[in-house]
Amino acid sequence: MEWKPRGRVWPEIRGSEALGLPLPYRAAFLALRRNGLATLTRSGLEGDAPVPLWLADSVLRGVGQVMLQNSAWTGLLFLAGIAWNAPLIAAGVVVGTAASTFAVVALGAERRAVRDGLYGFNGALVAVALLVFLKPDVLTWGCVVFAAAASTVLMAALTQALKPWQVPALTAPFVLTALCFFLALARFGRLQPTGLLPSAGLPAEAVVEGVVTAATVGLGLLDGVAQVFFQGSAVTGAVFLLGLLVASKRVCAVALAGSAVGLLTAWGMGAAEEAIRSGAFGFNAVLTAVALGTVFLRMDALAWVYTLTATVVSTLLFATLSAALQPLGMPAMTAPFVLATWVFLLAVPLFPRLRWS
Amino acid sequence: MEWKPRGRVWPEIRGSEALGLPLPYRAAFLALRRNGLATLTRSGLEGDAPVPLWLADSVLRGVGQVMLQNSAWTGLLFLAGIAWNAPLIAAGVVVGTAASTFAVVALGAERRAVRDGLYGFNGALVAVALLVFLKPDVLTWGCVVFAAAASTVLMAALTQALKPWQVPALTAPFVLTALCFFLALARFGRLQPTGLLPSAGLPAEAVVEGVVTAATVGLGLLDGVAQVFFQGSAVTGAVFLLGLLVASKRVCAVALAGSAVGLLTAWGMGAAEEAIRSGAFGFNAVLTAVALGTVFLRMDALAWVYTLTATVVSTLLFATLSAALQPLGMPAMTAPFVLATWVFLLAVPLFPRLRWS
Amino acid sequence: MEWKPRGRVWPEIRGSEALGLPLPYRAAFLALRRNGLATLTRSGLEGDAPVPLWLADSVLRGVGQVMLQNSAWTGLLFLAGIAWNAPLIAAGVVVGTAASTFAVVALGAERRAVRDGLYGFNGALVAVALLVFLKPDVLTWGCVVFAAAASTVLMAALTQALKPWQVPALTAPFVLTALCFFLALARFGRLQPTGLLPSAGLPAEAVVEGVVTAATVGLGLLDGVAQVFFQGSAVTGAVFLLGLLVASKRVCAVALAGSAVGLLTAWGMGAAEEAIRSGAFGFNAVLTAVALGTVFLRMDALAWVYTLTATVVSTLLFATLSAALQPLGMPAMTAPFVLATWVFLLAVPLFPRLRWS
Repeated sequence: MEWKPRGRVWPEIRGSEALGLPLPYRAAFLALRRNGLATLTRSGLEGDAPVPLWLADSVLRGVGQVMLQNSAWTGLLFLAGIAWNAPLIAAGVVVGTAASTFAVVALGAERRAVRDGLYGFNGALVAVALLVFLKPDVLTWGCVVFAAAASTVLMAALTQALKPWQVPALTAPFVLTALCFFLALARFGRLQPTGLLPSAGLPAEAVVEGVVTAATVGLGLLDGVAQVFFQGSAVTGAVFLLGLLVASKRVCAVALAGSAVGLLTAWGMGAAEEAIRSGAFGFNAVLTAVALGTVFLRMDALAWVYTLTATVVSTLLFATLSAALQPLGMPAMTAPFVLATWVFLLAVPLFPRLRWS
Repeated sequence: MEWKPRGRVWPEIRGSEALGLPLPYRAAFLALRRNGLATLTRSGLEGDAPVPLWLADSVLRGVGQVMLQNSAWTGLLFLAGIAWNAPLIAAGVVVGTAASTFAVVALGAERRAVRDGLYGFNGALVAVALLVFLKPDVLTWGCVVFAAAASTVLMAALTQALKPWQVPALTAPFVLTALCFFLALARFGRLQPTGLLPSAGLPAEAVVEGVVTAATVGLGLLDGVAQVFFQGSAVTGAVFLLGLLVASKRVCAVALAGSAVGLLTAWGMGAAEEAIRSGAFGFNAVLTAVALGTVFLRMDALAWVYTLTATVVSTLLFATLSAALQPLGMPAMTAPFVLATWVFLLAVPLFPRLRWS
Repeated sequence: MEWKPRGRVWPEIRGSEALGLPLPYRAAFLALRRNGLATLTRSGLEGDAPVPLWLADSVLRGVGQVMLQNSAWTGLLFLAGIAWNAPLIAAGVVVGTAASTFAVVALGAERRAVRDGLYGFNGALVAVALLVFLKPDVLTWGCVVFAAAASTVLMAALTQALKPWQVPALTAPFVLTALCFFLALARFGRLQPTGLLPSAGLPAEAVVEGVVTAATVGLGLLDGVAQVFFQGSAVTGAVFLLGLLVASKRVCAVALAGSAVGLLTAWGMGAAEEAIRSGAFGFNAVLTAVALGTVFLRMDALAWVYTLTATVVSTLLFATLSAALQPLGMPAMTAPFVLATWVFLLAVPLFPRLRWS
């Protein structure tokens, strides 16, 4: 409980700005702030800004936080990238992030965490997943609002549960909330799937399928980024990278490198070409690389090897978890990123050669 | 680790009676005391009562604690309700609760927790579940005694594991112990199922089945209460409500309202009429509503909305978990109540507008 | 968080030797030291020994720690037992333990824990499992090295995660790492299984199969010990017992008794004769009996009953978990030992009649 991050002890923590936050948020917040475009906040939205503007800014940051960027501009570009491919889902992202954010404001959560979008990104992803995998009828939209709002309770619960280890909840609330609704399809006749969920079956030994070409690699790299929001479009992936570029050149490069690591790992292990091309093995690698390589660790040669290992592990875990969920016909979503990042963050205090960012 | 419940800091904690208890029990105990009929204890059973009477009282309270009531009278009425429907199982409940209670006395656990039935209710439920789903031969009765006794170790382990979050173990030890035995059916030829376990299969999309009528609603409401002890009988449900009424009018009303919320949620989502009528979607909602609405939270408008949300979530989780367990042919039992209550309790400290009871 | 083991407060802890260790290791270390042949260390390997000798000693202790023995001689005899049955796997054990140990040295982990083989035993088991269940081609050997090295990160993460409860990670990192690779078989075409993994299927009610004879009992007892390293050979089991005898007569006797408890439990519950004979129901019982009966608890009559209960529970859990993993076609490995031991260790502080070793 009493472990302190070795190395720098977050000098900024002495500043007044982070003092109100629970400890895990404080770390995430300070780390994220360095990467995000915080100018919008700085210019006067704090305190005296009109409430709608304040909330709109929080919602956009919530969208940006899906890739751990505390930046409204990044969020806006993510929305643009989604809208290019699926305007309805972009609308859903706004609705879901807003429902999360409003729910948590009503419950009186710490203002700063709300402000930085930390209660928004799970709602954003819940909305995307429900609208991708369920038919967009009235009941589904109702579920989007309810699930996004309720996912913030899970976010708070996991944040509290993880407090002893100072590890953030990441997108675990989204994954669990979405799985809850998809599994309920087997009991609730009025919920209608779109047919995109994997079909339930017993896992069987894979064989190498298809031939990896330059197109596989090119599309896989960009789609790996796009799949963070479950979008299968290279253009969307490119716009997402632009959104990251606005936040930081380094984050953009690390995200692309993460996608490449995922792709190469899957290729080397003999995954199906179609899955590689679709970016299925990329998005968890993107998130893991961004989290460890730009947010949490202070980078040196050893930290890069550690981040690379975590990124490879997140790719293996995608295979593992998607196979483990096959009897239920459920998708692994970002669970591999969450588990890999948790494990590699938890271990840091026992390895003194690694330092916190 | 160091979080304190905001709002009232349990003034009673200064009284001598709760001082010996580990922290999570202290909270549960004090909250429960307010709801339970504690007169039997007060009249002289403390300390100087003869041991058999002392133990009998603990066993009855253990039965009452299945619905979080620290009251021997409530426990007695629960037993009566079960006996009306299934006398053998009522006998099993006494055996299971006694096995749990005796095991924990032998291991030297905190007297007060034993006294309040906190080590009994999981044994009660283990006995019910084993006798409902396994053929009641000699081996099964042996398993009932062993499982009920061993479940107290799991109760102690979970209580200890959950200590950092001051969240009680609820009926998790029961669910895990029962699942352990039911899954073992696939390996141990001498264990014999009754045929009431769900059949193993891959989950498939549900369609709306049957028409909900007034009979569905009436039976579903009462059976939702009866199913807390896996009894499918409206009379049993009514006797259980009487048992709650003896403890507190409010608990009785909240339990019935919880059953109604479960029923309406399942109906709205298109669950099968047969399942609704059987109370399958009610019992987790009953328990969640009672736990949050009468034991843990100080109720105001926001707390009622929060409790309502948790109750709806527990109903969704019943669908989720029963589908998730379908490939194994296992029942979800009270796991949805446990998970929903844990999540909604864990989140409370981050939402300052909610207060502890 | 603040619970202290009641009873003796580890007087040795005041000695300088354990001061550098994190708390859970300190306990394990001190308990293990009493059982292990520590002479090799004492004779001059500390500090001034040449590095290769130092590392070789750590690797051998890592192999010994698979059965919780901090003894290079025990590790050497375990290797001999494996080599008698499967030389390639013995080589793999050396490679896997070395990969784990080197990885953790590179990451700068606490020297003492490395020295005692506490970062080695999971790598040893990862290597065995991967070489038993995957075809030993170049990719598999690459996976052995990568998985053994990465499993130390999981070991550190779990050690850190379990810190609040002062419970050791045991072989959980091995089980999770191995499952990760076996499940990935369903997605990665270049990974090739040997055909020894259980076939995926829905669990069905077992019937009593075969007749238990004296041969079943004799082979089952020894194979139960051998299966700790997934070896199906009575000679290997006998050599393992010799390895334990070198460490301590008591440990050897407890291990054999654990195997007997597992065998008798499985027989009594009606497990298939073939499974009993193969030692499948023995190895988790062996490990649980050794852990509770010789390492963690101070033994008296009650502690023996408690250990016996835990050993029976670990045998039941083998049936439970192997059935639970059947839809995925996965083996339970040592997960039953890990779960049973965690539960029975976690509960100890609430039962004051039990004391730590």
